[in-house]
Amino acid sequence: MIDINKAIESLDWQKEPRGLYEPIEYTLASGGKRIRPTLALIAAQTVINGGLISGTAVNDVLPAALALEVFHNFTLLHDDVMDRAEVRRGRPTVHTKWNDNTAILSGDQMLIEAYKLLSDVPAEKLPKVLKWFNEMATGICEGQQYDVDFEHMTQVSIEDYMKMIELKTSVLLAHAMRIGGYIAGAGEAQQEALYQYGLHIGLAFQIQDDILDVYGDPKTFGKAIGGDILCNKKTLMLLTAMETASPEDKAELLEWMITTDRNAEKIAAVTDIYTRLGVREKCEAIMEQETSNALKQLDKLPQNEATERLRNLAEQLATRTK
Amino acid sequence: MIDINKAIESLDWQKEPRGLYEPIEYTLASGGKRIRPTLALIAAQTVINGGLISGTAVNDVLPAALALEVFHNFTLLHDDVMDRAEVRRGRPTVHTKWNDNTAILSGDQMLIEAYKLLSDVPAEKLPKVLKWFNEMATGICEGQQYDVDFEHMTQVSIEDYMKMIELKTSVLLAHAMRIGGYIAGAGEAQQEALYQYGLHIGLAFQIQDDILDVYGDPKTFGKAIGGDILCNKKTLMLLTAMETASPEDKAELLEWMITTDRNAEKIAAVTDIYTRLGVREKCEAIMEQETSNALKQLDKLPQNEATERLRNLAEQLATRTK
Repeated sequence: MIDINKAIESLDWQKEPRGLYEPIEYTLASGGKRIRPTLALIAAQTVINGGLISGTAVNDVLPAALALEVFHNFTLLHDDVMDRAEVRRGRPTVHTKWNDNTAILSGDQMLIEAYKLLSDVPAEKLPKVLKWFNEMATGICEGQQYDVDFEHMTQVSIEDYMKMIELKTSVLLAHAMRIGGYIAGAGEAQQEALYQYGLHIGLAFQIQDDILDVYGDPKTFGKAIGGDILCNKKTLMLLTAMETASPEDKAELLEWMITTDRNAEKIAAVTDIYTRLGVREKCEAIMEQETSNALKQLDKLPQNEATERLRNLAEQLATRTK
Repeated sequence: MIDINKAIESLDWQKEPRGLYEPIEYTLASGGKRIRPTLALIAAQTVINGGLISGTAVNDVLPAALALEVFHNFTLLHDDVMDRAEVRRGRPTVHTKWNDNTAILSGDQMLIEAYKLLSDVPAEKLPKVLKWFNEMATGICEGQQYDVDFEHMTQVSIEDYMKMIELKTSVLLAHAMRIGGYIAGAGEAQQEALYQYGLHIGLAFQIQDDILDVYGDPKTFGKAIGGDILCNKKTLMLLTAMETASPEDKAELLEWMITTDRNAEKIAAVTDIYTRLGVREKCEAIMEQETSNALKQLDKLPQNEATERLRNLAEQLATRTK
């Protein structure tokens, strides 16, 4: 199996002007789970080399896999400007370390670098891969815009929320799977199964994230618990609570939502309401449904070491604590 | 000949979420000279239809031509955020009418839309066109970064300045020409001639812009005269003056550069120094050299209606007053 971290490290950013390329180097060197390129490579393995993870015939997939990772990091760079986030992966964000303009321009260049990597996809596969990549990128921007829109809306349906997280999170995982499989020679039915797998684990991942923000163990979760509650973020937890709450519970929830001091109290009180309403169980049921949908897709693929790894991954996501 | 304005108007932005697509529609509806797609289409005409401008066999070139225009407008959108420009083409800029985050995100989507248009380039031509488009886009970002860097540098050589404007302005025109010609079937020598033509008229255009900022007629130029002088912009005018000035003239120039009040006086005094040093003539000589280099390229192409139009265009650029 290709070492994706080494492949990312081997990208050359020692170019002029330094003001443009240094922030790109900084961003890509800050780690992260590399989940998107890894998925693209495993998707490829499901259909080649008899599914052997140790196989090496995935070189054709590498440029697209790297393009997905560079693209993902571009979105983080611009998102951090828009969210005024100061820290990412334990280090100052680009706009904090440099300035907004640097984050905008180096971010733009990162998006272009993703397309540069993409241009190394085998020529006969390029038209479809470029089309899908563009669809994916569009989905991310649309999802980001919906996320912004939701902040200012009083009523957001669970359906709208699911559509938003599908665009913002899942579509990238889904396309990573399909692109990896397609370049490696997957047939159309296999491509679709890979795509759907990515879509459903993405949804499961995001819902688990919403749950962990409330019920996670601060020691293992890695970020403060209750962050979504404090900023009244319209997560699946809050939307489910609003949908199932009695008028009294709803009034109590809304009262806490306009409370901007007493942070610890607010987190404890809203968590109590969630617990009383069984919000956790409802969200876990939806997450488990998504995980189950993802697992079902794997039955349509060759059964081998790579599919097994995807099976484990889906199960790990559903039970993760961080 | 394809009506490029109609083609741009026919792009569909009536999509959701409106917060993402409305600013794109707004930007593309604000006019502009459409010089880049027009150049791509004329470049195509030089090698097909016997060079007839009225010919219609350029349909294959249209997606790339539109991609170039959408890309150019993306750069304006993000540049306006970075420059804090409030007005563009007589209307509020996107970040002024909406906000910075909207300009960042809709700008990102515009860049993606450019690549979407590009994905309609005939499949067999796509790999090269994508590669060139990426090179072009990289050049623009690098040029923008050099421009920012130069603001904070005390010494900028004319050579560095020419390299910067080549990246920031010319490379887009050059690639528009080459991409248009290549898709229409131009051979390699013709592609190179088209590319070089675009490169040199771009340089001539930018230098003429620098001259007009000082010596233009405010009635025809369309913007206030002396804007570059007031903000001490390192144009070819200023760099040429600094390079040829006596120690006394240089001291006087530097004194005016640190003057931030007395705007009208500053413009008049710096213009006087330029006139005394013959800066206008020196810059005009460089511009005429670039125009002449552009015209020479046309001799390497079929002589027809389209080449004639390119000839007129180069001559018009050199004598333009607006």
